Amino acid sequence: MILILKKNISKSEAEELVARLQWMNLQSMLSEENGQFQIAIVSGEDARVHPQHFLNLPQVEEIRPFNQKFKLAGRELKSERSIIQIKDCQIGGEKLAVMAGPCSIESEEQMHTVASFVAKAGANILRGGAFKPRTSPYDFQGLGEEGLRYMKQAAEKNHLLSVSEVMDPHHLDLVASYVDILQIGARNMQNFSLLKEIGKTGKPILLKRGLSATYSEFLMAAEYILQTGNPNVILCERGIRTFEPYARNTLDIAAVPILHELSHLPVIVDPSHGTGIRKMVPPMAYAAVAAGADGIMVEVHPDPDRSYSDANQTISLETFSEMMNRIERMI
Amino acid sequence: MILILKKNISKSEAEELVARLQWMNLQSMLSEENGQFQIAIVSGEDARVHPQHFLNLPQVEEIRPFNQKFKLAGRELKSERSIIQIKDCQIGGEKLAVMAGPCSIESEEQMHTVASFVAKAGANILRGGAFKPRTSPYDFQGLGEEGLRYMKQAAEKNHLLSVSEVMDPHHLDLVASYVDILQIGARNMQNFSLLKEIGKTGKPILLKRGLSATYSEFLMAAEYILQTGNPNVILCERGIRTFEPYARNTLDIAAVPILHELSHLPVIVDPSHGTGIRKMVPPMAYAAVAAGADGIMVEVHPDPDRSYSDANQTISLETFSEMMNRIERMI
Amino acid sequence: MILILKKNISKSEAEELVARLQWMNLQSMLSEENGQFQIAIVSGEDARVHPQHFLNLPQVEEIRPFNQKFKLAGRELKSERSIIQIKDCQIGGEKLAVMAGPCSIESEEQMHTVASFVAKAGANILRGGAFKPRTSPYDFQGLGEEGLRYMKQAAEKNHLLSVSEVMDPHHLDLVASYVDILQIGARNMQNFSLLKEIGKTGKPILLKRGLSATYSEFLMAAEYILQTGNPNVILCERGIRTFEPYARNTLDIAAVPILHELSHLPVIVDPSHGTGIRKMVPPMAYAAVAAGADGIMVEVHPDPDRSYSDANQTISLETFSEMMNRIERMI
Amino acid sequence: MILILKKNISKSEAEELVARLQWMNLQSMLSEENGQFQIAIVSGEDARVHPQHFLNLPQVEEIRPFNQKFKLAGRELKSERSIIQIKDCQIGGEKLAVMAGPCSIESEEQMHTVASFVAKAGANILRGGAFKPRTSPYDFQGLGEEGLRYMKQAAEKNHLLSVSEVMDPHHLDLVASYVDILQIGARNMQNFSLLKEIGKTGKPILLKRGLSATYSEFLMAAEYILQTGNPNVILCERGIRTFEPYARNTLDIAAVPILHELSHLPVIVDPSHGTGIRKMVPPMAYAAVAAGADGIMVEVHPDPDRSYSDANQTISLETFSEMMNRIERMI
Repeated sequence: MILILKKNISKSEAEELVARLQWMNLQSMLSEENGQFQIAIVSGEDARVHPQHFLNLPQVEEIRPFNQKFKLAGRELKSERSIIQIKDCQIGGEKLAVMAGPCSIESEEQMHTVASFVAKAGANILRGGAFKPRTSPYDFQGLGEEGLRYMKQAAEKNHLLSVSEVMDPHHLDLVASYVDILQIGARNMQNFSLLKEIGKTGKPILLKRGLSATYSEFLMAAEYILQTGNPNVILCERGIRTFEPYARNTLDIAAVPILHELSHLPVIVDPSHGTGIRKMVPPMAYAAVAAGADGIMVEVHPDPDRSYSDANQTISLETFSEMMNRIERMI
Repeated sequence: MILILKKNISKSEAEELVARLQWMNLQSMLSEENGQFQIAIVSGEDARVHPQHFLNLPQVEEIRPFNQKFKLAGRELKSERSIIQIKDCQIGGEKLAVMAGPCSIESEEQMHTVASFVAKAGANILRGGAFKPRTSPYDFQGLGEEGLRYMKQAAEKNHLLSVSEVMDPHHLDLVASYVDILQIGARNMQNFSLLKEIGKTGKPILLKRGLSATYSEFLMAAEYILQTGNPNVILCERGIRTFEPYARNTLDIAAVPILHELSHLPVIVDPSHGTGIRKMVPPMAYAAVAAGADGIMVEVHPDPDRSYSDANQTISLETFSEMMNRIERMI
Repeated sequence: MILILKKNISKSEAEELVARLQWMNLQSMLSEENGQFQIAIVSGEDARVHPQHFLNLPQVEEIRPFNQKFKLAGRELKSERSIIQIKDCQIGGEKLAVMAGPCSIESEEQMHTVASFVAKAGANILRGGAFKPRTSPYDFQGLGEEGLRYMKQAAEKNHLLSVSEVMDPHHLDLVASYVDILQIGARNMQNFSLLKEIGKTGKPILLKRGLSATYSEFLMAAEYILQTGNPNVILCERGIRTFEPYARNTLDIAAVPILHELSHLPVIVDPSHGTGIRKMVPPMAYAAVAAGADGIMVEVHPDPDRSYSDANQTISLETFSEMMNRIERMI
Repeated sequence: MILILKKNISKSEAEELVARLQWMNLQSMLSEENGQFQIAIVSGEDARVHPQHFLNLPQVEEIRPFNQKFKLAGRELKSERSIIQIKDCQIGGEKLAVMAGPCSIESEEQMHTVASFVAKAGANILRGGAFKPRTSPYDFQGLGEEGLRYMKQAAEKNHLLSVSEVMDPHHLDLVASYVDILQIGARNMQNFSLLKEIGKTGKPILLKRGLSATYSEFLMAAEYILQTGNPNVILCERGIRTFEPYARNTLDIAAVPILHELSHLPVIVDPSHGTGIRKMVPPMAYAAVAAGADGIMVEVHPDPDRSYSDANQTISLETFSEMMNRIERMI
C-alpha cells in the first residue's frame, strides 16, 4: 500500500511515521513525488492490518493499493524514469550509455588497447569479465583479481567507468573495490541470496535478464535489490531462449519499450549475447537504439578470433568504431 | 547442383540444356549472373546421376554443389538482393515498402477513409483481410468478396497497391482477381498444398513466418513457391511464440539481418502481430527499419477500439502519421 | 449459452425449438444428458439477444452460460467422455487404440508385411502416409492414390481400420473413399478451411496438435470440426517445439490428463514424432499409457533404416512386438 | 582423454600416475571398469600435450578421446548406471526412491504428521524447504534452521532420509549438518560457485534441471559437482518452460530415457513442480515411473489448501497414499 502524506507534512515527520511502521513490523520506503512525501509499505501487511487504520493517521491524505507485484521497480510509486548517476556519467538520461570491452579480461595490454580505442570511439563504460560463468568447468574461468586490476587502470586512464560480473558472494567485496558497476549475469538472475547481498553494497547494479525470465520475474529480481534500499538498478536485455537454433539467443527488442512501460529503471541491450553472431551485432545495436534503449553493451576485442571466450559474437575495434559513427547519426 | 555454363553459351542453347535435363527427369532453373548463364538442378538428382556426367557436357564450365537446402531462396544461386517490381512500386529496393490498413475489411467507408489517409502519410500498399483466419469458428470470419471489392476501389483511388490473405485454394482465383499481392498467413506457412497452388498464380506472394518456424523452415516454405517458377516472394517476420506471456508474440528483429544473410528475398516486418500491443507498434517499427527491413506492415483503423478484430494491436490514423514522420527522418 | 429444457419436452419439441433459433440466426446443437434435452447456442448471440428472452420460453427450465470458448469440445455441454465407434472398434473406451504402420506407404509388399505383423502384435488401426507434408519440396511427396489402395487392401485383409493424412481439400474425397479415419497433420491444425471441409465428410477425424499450439488453440481447432455437426474427433498429442535441440520435439505427456480434464474427446499420443528418436519410442509409449492415453500412434517399418521418411524415429517390427507385450502387462 | 592402463597395473601404481599428471597440471580422475584401472584427464590439456606422449607411458595400454563434453557425467568413462548409497537406501538401484513432504517446513507438528504418514505409504525420503527461493522478496522465505531441526527429528523418527535445498553458500554447512541430501534448485542450476562449493561437502546432491536448461547444460552442471571429486549426483527433471500457459511447466518425461542414455547418473522426476497442478501429479508420477525414472519427488501436505507455498501443486496425504498404491502395482 502507498500512503500519500498531506502536503504540509515535513520530511522529519514522514521519517517518524516510517519508524513507527517499522515498529509495527511493516517495512516501508519513503519517497517524494511532486513535492509531496509518500510512504510505500512493501512488506509485513497481513490480514490483521486494516487499510482504514492508515487512513485514520493524521499525516495521511490518501491511500493507494499496489496493482503490480514489483512495488519498487514498477511505476506506481515513481512515475518518472530513473536516472542513475555514476561519477559524471548518467544512465537513463539523454546520453546513450555505451559499455564496451572484451568478454574476458586477458592481459594488461589488451585492456589498455581496448579501453583507449573504445573511449575515443564514444564508449563511456569499460566492460570485462574477471570471474567467468562458464557452462563447462573445464573452460577458462577468468583472471580474477589480476584482471580487475588491469581493468581499473585501463578504465581510469581513459576516463571510463567500469563494469564486471560478480558470481560468488565471497568475491563481492573484491569486485566492488575495483569497479563502478557490479553485474549480475543472466544465469544468476534468480540467485536470490546474491541479489540481496549485492544490493547491500549500495553500488549501481547491472542486472541481466535470465535466459527464460518473463518481464515480471525480471522486475521481481530487480525488486530483491531495490528492497535492500539500493535504488541503482540498470536492467539489461540480453536475448532469451527460444526454439530457433540459428542464433545463440533471440534478442527481445520489444523488452525495451515494454520494460520502460512497466518500470522506471533504465534499460540497456546487449546485442553480443543477444545474437551470438558477430555480423548481427551492429544491426541489432541500431534496432535497440531505435526502440529507445538507454544504452548498449558490446563485446569488443582487438583480435576477435583470438578471444578467449565468446569469439563468435565479439566485434573488432574497427567494426565498433563504424557502428558508433552510425549510432551517433541516428540520435 | 549448379551448372555454370561457358561464357559463349547463348540463352537458347541454355534453354535447350534445361529441356534436355527435364527429359532426364531433372527439374532445373535457368538464371543469369554477371552475364553468364547458370542452371540450377533443384530436384531429381539421385545416386544414379554422377556429377562427372555434367562436367562432360560441352556447355558446362564448372559445377558447384548446393550447401543449403533452400536452393532457390538462398544466396548460392543468386547473390544479389532481389527487388520485386509491382506496377510502379519496388519491394526490396531503396524505398521502404509500407503496408497499412485494417485487420479486417469492415465497410466501404472504412476502406476509403483508411486508404486516403495512409496514402497521404506515406504508405504505398493497402492491407485488409476479407477471409480471416480466426482461432474460434464463432468469431467474425470476414466480408469475403464484398470486402475485396471495397479494398480494390479504395486502393486504386489512392494509387496504392493492395495485399490480402488467401486461406483456401477455392478462393485463390477470386482473391487474385482483386489484389496485387497475395498473402499466406502464419498459420498456413506449412500448408504445402496451398503454397504450391499460390505459386502458380505468378502473383507476388507475401509469406508470413509461422509462429514457431525456424529460419530454415521459413525459407523452405518460400522454396515451395519459388520452385513453381514464381520468383516474387516477400518474407514477413511477424513475431514468434515464446514463453513470455505479456506480449502476444516476441518480435524477432534479428530475423531481418539473418534472413538477408541467408536469402536474396526482401524481408518486411509486422510490428502489429509482432507485439499485439498498440503502444509497442511504433518503437518496434523503428527497430525494424534500423535493422534494415525492406518494409513494414501495420494495422491501422480510424477507430481502433471499434476494430472488428485485433483491436489491441491496431493503431489510429494519427499514430500512423506520427510514426511515418519519424521513420522518414530515420532513413 | 446452454438451454436446459424441461423434463417433459420431447425430442420433436426440442427440434422445433432448434429450428426456431436457426430462424433467429442462432446456430445451436441439440443433445441429451441424463434423459433431459439441452440446446447449446454456439453462435449468433450478440448484444440484441437478452438471456431473459430464453428463460421466458415455455420449454426452457434453466439457462447456463458457457465458461469456456470451446463450447462443443469442452465438458460443459457433455460431461462424460466420448467413445468413438468405428466399425467394431472403439476409441476412448476400455481398450487401447493402437495405430501402427510406416511413415510413408512405399509399396504393396511393405504394407502387407507391416499390416499382418502389427495386427498379430495387437494393433487395431493401420497408419501410412500417401500424401506427405514435407518441409522440403524436393523430398519424397508420397505415392498418392496408389498408396491408398495398397493400404486399404492390407488393412482389410488383416481386419484393421486405416488412417491417413489429408493435406489438400482437392484430395479429401479421394482419401475419404479409402480410409476409415482422416488425419489432420500438425502443420495444418490451424488450416481453418480444411478443418471445415473435413468436418463435413462426417468421417472420424484424427486431429494432431500443432507444433506450438496451446491446449486452448488445439481444442478450438477441434471446435471447427465439431461445429460442422461431426462429433467424431480424436485428439493426438505429438510433441511440441521447445528450446531443447536433442529430441525433435518435446512430448507433452501432461497433455493427456489435461485434455481429458478440459474435453470429453479421446486423446492419443504419438511417441514417434513426439521424440524423433527410435530408442525413445517404447519408454514414451509406456508413459503415455500410464498417464491415461486412449491410444498410441507409432511408426513401424520392416527395415527402419531404409524408411523413405522419418527413419530416425521408426521402430522395427520386433521392437513393436516387444513394446506391445509390455503395454499389455501394464493395463 | 582416457588412459586405459595395462591389466597388471596396481591401484598404487595408478595413483602414482595420477599424482604425476597432477604435477604436469593435468587434473585427472582414477576409476576402475571391469577390473582394469583407467585415468580420465578432465582438464589441463592444451596444444602442448601430445596424445602420443601418453601412449609412450609404460603403464598405458590404450588412449581414448572424450566425445562428449560431460566427461564425468557421461557414459564414456563409466558405462554402468550409478547407484548412490545413502545409509541403507539406494538411489538408482532396483527400488524406486520416493521423496515426499511439504514445499515449506511450517511447524514441528506438520513435519511429524507428514513424515509418519508418507513413511507408512512407502516413501523413503522426507523433503521440505527451510530456505525458500521465492520469485518475490515479499513472500515467505522459510523457517531456516528451526525448520531443519523439525525435519531432522521427523525423518529420524520415521526412518526416512531427508533432503532440503541450499540457496546460499553461507548456509551450506548448516544445511549439511541436518540433512542427508543437499538440493540445488532449478534457479541455481548454473550458479557455478555454489555447485563447486556444494560438491566439496561430499554429500549426495539432488540437482534440479534449470527451467530452460538443455540436457547438455544440465549434465555440465552435474560435471561441476563431479569434478570436485563427489560422485553422488542425482538428476531431477522438474518441468521446463514452454509457450503453454495452462500448466506451470511442461514436464519433460522423455528426459528420463534420454538422460539415462547420455549419463550413468540416477534420474528422478518431480511431477509437482513439473505441472503445478494438483490433479496432474498422480498421472505424471505414473508416467515417470513407466518411462523408467529412478524415483519421484512429490509435494504432500496434511491440508494442501493451507500450504504456505505451492498450494496449487501440493497433494493431500490421502492422494499420496492412493498414488503409492497404484505405483506399487505398476512395478
